[in-house]
Amino acid sequence: MVIDCHGHYTTVPKEAQAFRDAQIAGRADAKVPDITDDQIRESVQPQLSFQAARGTDVTIFSPRASAMAHHAGDARANLQWARLCNDLVHRVCALFPKQFVGVCQLPQSVGGSPADCIGELERCVNELGFIGCNLNPDPSGGHWTAPPLTDRAWYPLYEKLVDLDVPAMVHVSASCNANFHATGAHYLNADTTAFMQFLTGDLFKDFPALRFVIPHGGGAVPYHWGRYRGLAQDMKRPLLADLIRDNVFFDTCVYHYPGIELLLKVVPVGNIVFGSEMVGAVRGIDPETGHYFDDTKRYIDVITWMNAADKAKIFELNARRIYPRINNALAR
Amino acid sequence: MVIDCHGHYTTVPKEAQAFRDAQIAGRADAKVPDITDDQIRESVQPQLSFQAARGTDVTIFSPRASAMAHHAGDARANLQWARLCNDLVHRVCALFPKQFVGVCQLPQSVGGSPADCIGELERCVNELGFIGCNLNPDPSGGHWTAPPLTDRAWYPLYEKLVDLDVPAMVHVSASCNANFHATGAHYLNADTTAFMQFLTGDLFKDFPALRFVIPHGGGAVPYHWGRYRGLAQDMKRPLLADLIRDNVFFDTCVYHYPGIELLLKVVPVGNIVFGSEMVGAVRGIDPETGHYFDDTKRYIDVITWMNAADKAKIFELNARRIYPRINNALAR
Repeated sequence: MVIDCHGHYTTVPKEAQAFRDAQIAGRADAKVPDITDDQIRESVQPQLSFQAARGTDVTIFSPRASAMAHHAGDARANLQWARLCNDLVHRVCALFPKQFVGVCQLPQSVGGSPADCIGELERCVNELGFIGCNLNPDPSGGHWTAPPLTDRAWYPLYEKLVDLDVPAMVHVSASCNANFHATGAHYLNADTTAFMQFLTGDLFKDFPALRFVIPHGGGAVPYHWGRYRGLAQDMKRPLLADLIRDNVFFDTCVYHYPGIELLLKVVPVGNIVFGSEMVGAVRGIDPETGHYFDDTKRYIDVITWMNAADKAKIFELNARRIYPRINNALAR
Repeated sequence: MVIDCHGHYTTVPKEAQAFRDAQIAGRADAKVPDITDDQIRESVQPQLSFQAARGTDVTIFSPRASAMAHHAGDARANLQWARLCNDLVHRVCALFPKQFVGVCQLPQSVGGSPADCIGELERCVNELGFIGCNLNPDPSGGHWTAPPLTDRAWYPLYEKLVDLDVPAMVHVSASCNANFHATGAHYLNADTTAFMQFLTGDLFKDFPALRFVIPHGGGAVPYHWGRYRGLAQDMKRPLLADLIRDNVFFDTCVYHYPGIELLLKVVPVGNIVFGSEMVGAVRGIDPETGHYFDDTKRYIDVITWMNAADKAKIFELNARRIYPRINNALAR
């Protein structure tokens, strides 16, 4: 089985974003839209086609990341928006239970407390059958005003994640800072930033069962694996492999063969989980290969020096370990 | 010849930082320190030893990056500090003219204009024989309040860089944002951020002769080269190789063999310039190899699939092209 841990509902019917725009503008006609099952079925045809063509069995599916825009609304608006987005993902999962399992957007906001997200997290996991969440380390959208992920302010949410036995993918949203292009800088910077926070903190001593997926191949981290090993050593921190073993995982959203090969060479196989971010950040076909940039399964498939057992960890078994609730979801 | 484009005076006599601390604290006893030639000779012995041991002939040498701390002082204080730091580098270069060539710190400040840096840049290039500068894309130290590098606010400085025919290394300083570890996150994020700004802007149409070195192996960029090629294609931008050809260069400050190999595989050889960041971010010996993490020459030396002519570009010829004033400096 091939589980893609990183898919967003980027093709959501346009009525959803129209509502959000009206809500943020404070327009009187802002009304949660009626979206039909037919619209939802139609909207995920691209994902279903790509899954079939690429040999992905199931996608761990969450609301469109760039549209979370936690910086744009207050706590109340963002809760309404998160509920709508999560409900739409839930409907996708209900219509296509073999192809999609849900991960939720959290109702974070600038200056809001992570504890405020617990209610929606519980609703999504306990009532909608979701198996994880996306956690935005920078609700300010590129101004980085929240405390680091190792700060105790996050602990109430972490307690709930551990309690529910669900992981968080560290995933920022759109950038409202002109310095940071969202998918070309802000996303990767956040991945790199989060990893270094984990390296320098003792978060996993306090939460041995807490699990984070760092997307986009871990940002800059695997490319600079020697730098991080050296920094950890200089700072008398544990070996990276020990530090991340049960707690930090990188997905395979790296859009060329040399990058994927480096990831698989340097990061322990137990800490890599298949992902494609499809349909997402890069939509075109690579003229150098004739294949979609984000067909990341293909890069792994052609690697000859990794055995089938290890590839099975990346494609399936690690995801089942990181997101244990997927086992029940897939057995239904 | 082997030219290391990326060395900082991290072993500067401690009187320098003591002055800066007193200056920032507004202490009455803040006085530009007297530092003797013997102190300077002594202070660079680590660099000289490493150069000799590793086979580096000359280092393009600049003030300690993390100590620039443009966020800490106002324009006047930062000018005094930049002059002191640049003068110390100049004295190193004068004492060891075969081993060091200078690159200057700019007196940037939060809210200050890039144009304010022109005087010190001219002094360093015209009077001290420096061959480039370090340009901080985020003088706020991790709050990213300055405009992107493609903004016209930077143009007066760029005009002077072109006029003097010197490049800028894009290099942030310390972080005063708790989210960003300096060498483990802020540095790499800035590299990634700057590249994406260049990709999305038309800066090099306005300044065809402007040259930037992006340090630390280009941050996350080479690892995500497919992502950037794909983003450029989706955005109808030029091919990356064309976009960067004469304007954007990556150094080799990547502290493990797989990272260096990836860099050399994906980035055109004309856009790679040897650097080690020595003595700098990572100071230890890699237990997996028995060699210093930052002995980046060794990683390149053992690559068998690149011919000597291409390695000569990385070790010497590209640096002579990017920093043309080095030719006169070395001929003296």
